[in-house]
Amino acid sequence: MTYTLVLLRHGESVWNAKNLFTGWVDVDLSDKGRAEAVSAGEQLKEAGLLPDLVHTSLQRRAINTANLALDAADRHWIPVRRSWRLNERHYGALQGKDKKQTLEAYGEEQFMLWRRSFDVPPPPIDPDDEFSQAHDVRYAGLGDDAPRSECLKDVIARMLPWWESAIVPDLLEGNTVLVAAHGNSLRGIVKHLDGISDTDIAGLNIPTGMPLVYRLGKDLKPEVPGGEYLDPEAARAAAEAVANQGR
Amino acid sequence: MTYTLVLLRHGESVWNAKNLFTGWVDVDLSDKGRAEAVSAGEQLKEAGLLPDLVHTSLQRRAINTANLALDAADRHWIPVRRSWRLNERHYGALQGKDKKQTLEAYGEEQFMLWRRSFDVPPPPIDPDDEFSQAHDVRYAGLGDDAPRSECLKDVIARMLPWWESAIVPDLLEGNTVLVAAHGNSLRGIVKHLDGISDTDIAGLNIPTGMPLVYRLGKDLKPEVPGGEYLDPEAARAAAEAVANQGR
Repeated sequence: MTYTLVLLRHGESVWNAKNLFTGWVDVDLSDKGRAEAVSAGEQLKEAGLLPDLVHTSLQRRAINTANLALDAADRHWIPVRRSWRLNERHYGALQGKDKKQTLEAYGEEQFMLWRRSFDVPPPPIDPDDEFSQAHDVRYAGLGDDAPRSECLKDVIARMLPWWESAIVPDLLEGNTVLVAAHGNSLRGIVKHLDGISDTDIAGLNIPTGMPLVYRLGKDLKPEVPGGEYLDPEAARAAAEAVANQGR
Repeated sequence: MTYTLVLLRHGESVWNAKNLFTGWVDVDLSDKGRAEAVSAGEQLKEAGLLPDLVHTSLQRRAINTANLALDAADRHWIPVRRSWRLNERHYGALQGKDKKQTLEAYGEEQFMLWRRSFDVPPPPIDPDDEFSQAHDVRYAGLGDDAPRSECLKDVIARMLPWWESAIVPDLLEGNTVLVAAHGNSLRGIVKHLDGISDTDIAGLNIPTGMPLVYRLGKDLKPEVPGGEYLDPEAARAAAEAVANQGR
């Protein structure tokens, strides 16, 4: 008996294409991102990897990626679960800022610290900033849980309760579970599954729109460390491109 | 305290446009249908009628209508519930048949009996017919509940348990509930809410893509019999067009 988990990072968003820090800003997919999502669904169908249910964040780019991929895989009708705990990392005061300009303004060291350090969050965003979610109704119930900036450590701390309480039970019932989410919430899941150190996770990049399949044993340990991309060559090239963002 | 229910019939499907009996065949929206769904979402947003959660059937045209409308209303992130009990009427052996040809082949009386009688289902579909759902995995768990043909009475009988056990509890918690479904499952809800007789329901047509709003009192009785369309003029014209299908 193995359990099957499929991780899917949303396709390119309008702001990925513009090279802006996005975080919790609820931007939509670009046309390229929509095509990536459809292609991911076609890959799942071709591989016979048919999700029994899907988990998404509360963000449009992940939700629409799930909708498009599942429609392409003829699995549009499966149950849906959503949680803010699968959201992208909150990028604090950097939300809405240009990545290249941020790199030039603050220098390589500070830039990479904000982007890749495990436990240094960017400065908190002003609640009245146009790119703050302090007044977004979908997060009104979060109270003190609502972040104003997050490092990867923070993301993992708020993601893991959803993993344990919602995703794991769905896996243990024998469901093939699709998680359609974001670069950093998915890195958190991968770090947890593969037991990657706080240092080494900095070097792990997850490409957009490429289904990453984990077969998990009884103890929920991956049979193949790092999981398996349905299209490994394309995934390697895409991960390198992510690592070079802002250059 | 009133409870708010919004009924939304899916936009035009590819087979509505071709004038074929559809039933449980899982056809997609036409381009016009997609535009109707987006417009419905814009109407909801403009009216400040923001769903807290959505119920859909297991059929693509209702699911995609919900996805498009909620995206347009900025409510893409709300919880989703799905049930086969909200599916369109199963049209039995007529599924996949041309409405005009069926009218000519069987005559006005038999045609209207199948289309509009309360308790006369069309002949059952052969399980191996190309338009049967006997081998569709999404209905594999239904067992003896899986229909091979339905009249409106049958639709209401299998719809009401979902109304009582899933939609009513969501309403009673104070949620604005959107139900994105089909001509006949929605006629069943309207018949139930407004206490329409088995005879009079024949004359009730629900137009595609037009939000129909019911404010319900403590006893879940409509404050305004028949509910209120956000765009009453357009709804009246569209309902007449539905009544004349096959002519």
